[in-house]
Formats: sequence, structure tokens, C-alpha cells
Amino acid sequence: MAKRLSTKQDYQSLIDDYDTWLFDCDGVLWEGNRLIPGATDILAFLRSQNKSVIFVTNNATQSRRMYKGKFDKLGVEAHVDEIFGSAYAAAVYISSVVKLPKDKKVYVVGMAGIEEELGVENIQCIGGTDPVDNTLEPFDFGSWKPDPSVGAVLCGLDLSVNYTKLSKAFQYLLKNPECHFLATNGDSTYPSAYGLLPGAGAVMSPVKTALGREPLYIGKPNPTMLECIKAKHHFDPKRTIMVGDRLNTDIEFGRNGGLSTLLVLSGITKESDITGPNASSTVPEYVTGSVGDFRAVIP
Amino acid sequence: MAKRLSTKQDYQSLIDDYDTWLFDCDGVLWEGNRLIPGATDILAFLRSQNKSVIFVTNNATQSRRMYKGKFDKLGVEAHVDEIFGSAYAAAVYISSVVKLPKDKKVYVVGMAGIEEELGVENIQCIGGTDPVDNTLEPFDFGSWKPDPSVGAVLCGLDLSVNYTKLSKAFQYLLKNPECHFLATNGDSTYPSAYGLLPGAGAVMSPVKTALGREPLYIGKPNPTMLECIKAKHHFDPKRTIMVGDRLNTDIEFGRNGGLSTLLVLSGITKESDITGPNASSTVPEYVTGSVGDFRAVIP
Repeated sequence: MAKRLSTKQDYQSLIDDYDTWLFDCDGVLWEGNRLIPGATDILAFLRSQNKSVIFVTNNATQSRRMYKGKFDKLGVEAHVDEIFGSAYAAAVYISSVVKLPKDKKVYVVGMAGIEEELGVENIQCIGGTDPVDNTLEPFDFGSWKPDPSVGAVLCGLDLSVNYTKLSKAFQYLLKNPECHFLATNGDSTYPSAYGLLPGAGAVMSPVKTALGREPLYIGKPNPTMLECIKAKHHFDPKRTIMVGDRLNTDIEFGRNGGLSTLLVLSGITKESDITGPNASSTVPEYVTGSVGDFRAVIP
Repeated sequence: MAKRLSTKQDYQSLIDDYDTWLFDCDGVLWEGNRLIPGATDILAFLRSQNKSVIFVTNNATQSRRMYKGKFDKLGVEAHVDEIFGSAYAAAVYISSVVKLPKDKKVYVVGMAGIEEELGVENIQCIGGTDPVDNTLEPFDFGSWKPDPSVGAVLCGLDLSVNYTKLSKAFQYLLKNPECHFLATNGDSTYPSAYGLLPGAGAVMSPVKTALGREPLYIGKPNPTMLECIKAKHHFDPKRTIMVGDRLNTDIEFGRNGGLSTLLVLSGITKESDITGPNASSTVPEYVTGSVGDFRAVIP
């Protein structure tokens, strides 16, 4: 059973026990464009205590560079090398694990953040934000010439998803069994400032449904994301804690990586998801209302 | 095991044994805009033998009236009262089973065919082809005013599917547990003239995935469609045969309704799907290459 943090001593112990703090962002530090009250305070306090702070997000609509802009806008200190997004992790996976030949391309169902991270890794891509594929006209299958150099399909949250992109992604995978089928993350929803909206796992589900098979998911809770972080930061898993709002992504991710886990109830997971007869089988080590609760220990 | 039709006598026996012939269309009579060779001959021959001919399609992009236009264009005799589409069946279901109050509305993820059939049943709808909802701009959740009169969400194949329609459908269902969640059909793909494309079951899967629950499917293989046909045509199930190209829709539909079934291999189902170690557990009563094979018995 999760330990419910409540006293000043509870929060102080946690700060004493962990040197590296991994934070999910949406639902933990902010909801949409609204900061969770106290988020900047705990981050500043951790830094003042010489703790390492790392941001781990499944948000693949933005590159790390673009995501840094969001921190800046909200007045939260963050550095690009502290930010790990699923678009970046997918690009690293394609270049260093898949080792996609340089003359091959990735067909993208997704936004500029994915394209930018693929570019950083020198991976060619098509689809995505290309105006040709961003149309609400019916897909002109008869005139379409598939690009024979497509060796992978990468799907992420795409707020401009349409039938043309879904159809092309499906066709590339259907016609070429060698074509890699990747998804930045499988989150079924994401918390916007105004409530839940369909997430990357929902937006790419037409491709999965039509094809009848699952993609390889890169983001949390899968280990690929942690491999990416490990390649850049040294940390002791025993003194590292993952703070997140989702059991099936953040908390699973921490547990899969041998990290401690702290669930905050300021995002997706509600009290009823962790207590009572219908509680999830994924149990965090600690639970608290929001990161703002740490203000108890901030002088 | 399915009986493989091959001799002239096989085809003649089938014609002798069944008075009512239910045909799926895509993959059986045509593929996209290309007629299956011999389709018009068998239909004309059946009519000449005083057989009843009924067309049963999961295609919900078109109303029966619009679908009749396709028959006309391809030179295939058909009458509107012989055509049963899943858009029509959904409209009948909403008016006569759900009995949606007349001041309530249906939010549509789908095309003009659904809107027309809902109109015929005097059901109000929003979404669908409304230009306001057909945009590739990000969904403006903050400015959106949900219509409190929405009492059902109906999803069908929508070649202009976008994030705004998926988000609104999801929000109506998430916020109102009384809101009915219906899908015209669950076909994961459909055969176009140039190959497979994502079907209604794929296009609506983001709503299902985000919501974490299944809609009620109206079309084949579900009995709602057969109820619709029975309300308009009298037939003896023992002397009725369903001809289709999909095991999990057409053949299941016939079997669920106590009809005989004939699988044609001119569409989705391939030889390997019905023979060998990975064969489906759904077994048709008869199987043949295409409806063109009936030319053996046509004088």
C-alpha cells in the first residue's frame, strides 16, 4: 500500500532520501497553461539543496527546445539537457537502436516537435506538418505514389490528424512488413487546461486498429525513455524518485526502472483509482495531493 | 468445414434452395468503383427467377438514396427499399429503440449519409459535415460551448475525421454518462479500388480509446441490422442466404440471424484465412471465388 505523505517530517524525509528527482510535467507541474500552485517553489528548493531535477514527458508535440519555451513562459527554471520528451527518445531510438540507414525516411503522424527531434538526429522524415498531407479532402489514393524509402512510421499526438496521414501510415506498414511501427507514447488522454482530450495513444489507434497490431511504444512506461536519460545523466536508482500523476505511465515507468515513485493527485489519477475495490494493481510508493504539498518544508 | 462450390450443379442447387439473397456490396459486387465481373449477371438472373434481392452494407458514408446512385452509375439494378445501410439502421435504432426525445440531438462523427438518414427519421444532429467542426486548426476547447441537448454520439466512417470532432465526441460521452455511444459499424478496414483503407472501426477508435469503453455497434454482424430488414421484408430464414466477403461481419451476421452463408474470396478474406492452421473459427456454409462464378448456371 502507498504511504500517504502528510506531516512536515514525511516531506522532509523524502527530500533527504532522494538525490535525483524525475518529474512528469502535465498534471504534475502544470495543467495546460496553468501552473500547479507551489510547483516553482519545490523545484527551486530542490535545486537549492543540490538535488538533480529531470523532466520526463510523454508530450511529443514539442521538441525539447520548444518545451523549454513552455517552462520559460510559465517562469519555471529548466535547462534543455534536463528535459526528456518522447519525441526525442523516439529519434534517439530510431538512430541508435533501429539504426535506420541514412537513405531511409520516417513517415510521421505527428507535429513539429517530432520533426525537429528527428532532424537533430539527422533522420529524414515526410508526412507530419507537410501541407500536402494536411488536408480534409478525401485521401486521393489513386494518385498517391508511396515513397519506397520509408522504413519506419512514427506516430505521436497530432492535433491535425486526418484521414490522409492515417491512410498513408497504414499503407506503408501494410505493404512493407519490414517497416518499423513506432509510437512516441500510448497515453489514451492528456490533461489540457480545460479538461481531458484524446492523447497520442488515441490519435494513433486508427493505424493500429486497421493494421491489427500494436506499435512499439517509446515513452513512459517503457524502458526506452529511461535508457535515454541514463545515457546523459548518472544517477543511483536507489536515490532517485519519479513524480507523476498517471499510474500506467509515470508510476509504472519508475517501478520498471527500479526507482521510487510518488503519485500526485493533481492530474489524471483520482483518489478512487488507488483506494477501494476497483483500485489499480499499480501501487506507488508514496502519494500526495500535489507537488504544492512540499511547501510544508520550504523555509 | 465450408462446402467449396465448383460444379454447375453446386451453383444451381444454391439457386434452387434459397429464395432471398442478401448481398454485401464492397468486395462482393464491386471494389471501389470497379464492378466484380459477373455481378450484374447473377443479380439479373436471380431477379428473373423471382428471387428477392437485398443489399446489406456497413457503408455509412452514404444514405440509401445516395447509395442507389452508386448502383445506377455502375449499371446495377437496385431499388432504395432493397438497400439497407448501417447509417439507416443506426437512425432507425435511435428513433425506435433508444427513442431519443425529439428535443435531443445526435453528435455525428461521420459524413452526409448519416446526416441524411437521421433527417429521414426526424432526428436532429450536429457535427458531421458542419464546416465549423471540419477544420485542421487545433480544437479550441476553451471557447467551446457544449450543446446540452446532445443525447447520443454516432460514429461512422468519416473521410474528414479530425481532432475537433474526435474531441467533442469524447467530451460529450465523458461528461454525460447518459449519452448513448453508437457506431454504425466496427469494420477495421474497407476495400477501396486501390487497396485497403482504414474503416469506420478504425476511424472511431480514438473516441473508444480515450473513453476506455466500446460503443454499441449497429451494422453487421450485429442483429440490429437484421431487425431493420425484417421490419420491411418478410423472408424465411431457412430459405435465405447471406453472401459476403468478410468472415467477422457478413458471415457472422448470417450465422447470428440463422441464415445460410456464402463467402466470396473477391474482397477482404483470403484463402489462407479459411484454411490451414490459422483459419478463423467463423466458418461459412459455402465458399466460392466471386459472384462471377454463378455465370456457370446462367443460360
